[in-house]
Amino acid sequence: MNNTWWQAPARELHQSVQEAAVNYQHTLTKPAGSLGELESIAVRLAGMQGKLRPEIKAPWISIFAADHGVAAAGVSAFPQEVTLQMVANFSRGGAAITVLARQIGALFEVVDVGVASDTGMYPGVVQDKIAHGTANFANAPAMTGAQLEQALAAGRSAVNRALAAGADCFIAGEMGITNTTSASALASIWLKAAPADMSGPGTGLDSQGVSNKARVIGQALQLHAANLDEPQTALATFGGFEVAAMTGAYIAAAQAGLPVIVDGIISSVSALGASLLNPGVEKWFFYGHQSAEPAHVRVLEALGAQPLLKLSMRLGEGSGAATAFPLLQLACALHGQMATFAEAGISSADA
Amino acid sequence: MNNTWWQAPARELHQSVQEAAVNYQHTLTKPAGSLGELESIAVRLAGMQGKLRPEIKAPWISIFAADHGVAAAGVSAFPQEVTLQMVANFSRGGAAITVLARQIGALFEVVDVGVASDTGMYPGVVQDKIAHGTANFANAPAMTGAQLEQALAAGRSAVNRALAAGADCFIAGEMGITNTTSASALASIWLKAAPADMSGPGTGLDSQGVSNKARVIGQALQLHAANLDEPQTALATFGGFEVAAMTGAYIAAAQAGLPVIVDGIISSVSALGASLLNPGVEKWFFYGHQSAEPAHVRVLEALGAQPLLKLSMRLGEGSGAATAFPLLQLACALHGQMATFAEAGISSADA
Repeated sequence: MNNTWWQAPARELHQSVQEAAVNYQHTLTKPAGSLGELESIAVRLAGMQGKLRPEIKAPWISIFAADHGVAAAGVSAFPQEVTLQMVANFSRGGAAITVLARQIGALFEVVDVGVASDTGMYPGVVQDKIAHGTANFANAPAMTGAQLEQALAAGRSAVNRALAAGADCFIAGEMGITNTTSASALASIWLKAAPADMSGPGTGLDSQGVSNKARVIGQALQLHAANLDEPQTALATFGGFEVAAMTGAYIAAAQAGLPVIVDGIISSVSALGASLLNPGVEKWFFYGHQSAEPAHVRVLEALGAQPLLKLSMRLGEGSGAATAFPLLQLACALHGQMATFAEAGISSADA
Repeated sequence: MNNTWWQAPARELHQSVQEAAVNYQHTLTKPAGSLGELESIAVRLAGMQGKLRPEIKAPWISIFAADHGVAAAGVSAFPQEVTLQMVANFSRGGAAITVLARQIGALFEVVDVGVASDTGMYPGVVQDKIAHGTANFANAPAMTGAQLEQALAAGRSAVNRALAAGADCFIAGEMGITNTTSASALASIWLKAAPADMSGPGTGLDSQGVSNKARVIGQALQLHAANLDEPQTALATFGGFEVAAMTGAYIAAAQAGLPVIVDGIISSVSALGASLLNPGVEKWFFYGHQSAEPAHVRVLEALGAQPLLKLSMRLGEGSGAATAFPLLQLACALHGQMATFAEAGISSADA
């Protein structure tokens, strides 16, 4: 894999504008630093957009849906057909993320990158299917190298659609029964952690189910021991198509200079994969929330992430990222619309 | 103080509707509990509004502004005239809370309950002034019993204006240079804590300034040792007019069945005072955020509060509550608009 698109560097931040935004923050009518992380958000967006007063007006949400061969190992509380049923629910607007998309005014699409059944009968589902589900990584690599490239490219295509529509913020979400198993396996590899420490209840496993999940992952790590060192090989061996598509999307967004809000455990593992394939892309990432899935906090630490929300959410679908989105808009509004001390004729602090 | 309005009980929650909302949550197309605190918010609002699918459409923000005699003790990083200057900034729409009010679509008012100078020249400032600032509690009680009653009533009047305008969510904020000193004194009394543990930098004191603030509070607690046991006496002795007005507002909101979002340290001390004057009112309170002011976490614990955000904000003005407001709207939208498993024809979890 030489000279591939996903190795091209992320767009540079506008460092001088970001520094000017820090200084501008100090002129606003409030004690310095008193808006906390809302100030940091606005300053980072200034550096991303190259505008002293950044604005976020057009969020975009792509949900990548795919099935997983490892579902045959009984590692989810829900049966595999729920992936298809939820794609239908996205199409009809009844899922959590579709409600959130309407509320935050986001453009929204679902992309079939590997659902086991056909989804063509559901209106609005983008067809970018790589295969009818991955192979079961308990027996064989989940995907081939060529399939990994297709999945990464599916993510890039979604970013290109977002850019064509004028989006200024990119949220990826996922649907794929068993995909916390894929994410936990990748987290075990990339954090050099025991599968038991990276495995959680997902959609609702009991403790016996979680132990089984960790055991399945542990055996697969032994089976594929030769495939763990190179990030792209690990991603092909254990990734879902939706996991790899999000990795590709995050890299493409960073290359295009499109700010990203990362979601929960699966999305964060995809983001970690992106940062391993292409170090530096992570400077374009915000982190919507810290999920209740136990491994998420460890993955966030590996990314040096500051999650914006901590509301014990663990749904996926991009729901935590979409819930955090209003904070970016409020941060921009405060930064851009507050009066300065000079404009307001206000005395400054004794100092 | 017998048989006064603020002792009338809070409105009862619709317990049966709240229980029905819990059950309804379990029918929505997501793993049970996976929306975390967003589920609890919707369920609580269902109990408050008596509607299986609650909605929040009309937030109201009242900012209570007042000055503090204890400012003479040099316990703030900013000079006292900033209270007046910030009232002007609210009136012109340049302050943080006015930007947030526009963003979240809130009706907004500023109420002068005790600014040291006249504020009548600033358009839209509600005139409910009790005095030109409190007395300096380093020497004498901050207000008389009659003034406390006026301040509590000023809060009730604000709630009545909110109700008349059709508000369905009430946010109180404050502006008053030195008011963290008042809040820290009351927190020391009500949490039986050392002033040094309840005193923080406020708008930006250095460590020497914080020590001085704690010393001023400690001496005043000795001077007024006979005034600490009764909540209303403590509130009159150490409270600002804006602190007491928020206490009155929170009680009146709970009596009227109007959900409240509490803000930072000062607002939370006012809420704690409300719960001491009238136990039970706190069941109408949400808590917008945990501020960076060190004592806030302790005050929240005393209230049994679960703050929604933790963004290192420490501005006051109701800014943390307003920033959290979109979470209530998103919670209602998810609860009210998501499809059920039956509607979507989705298989449920193995269980």
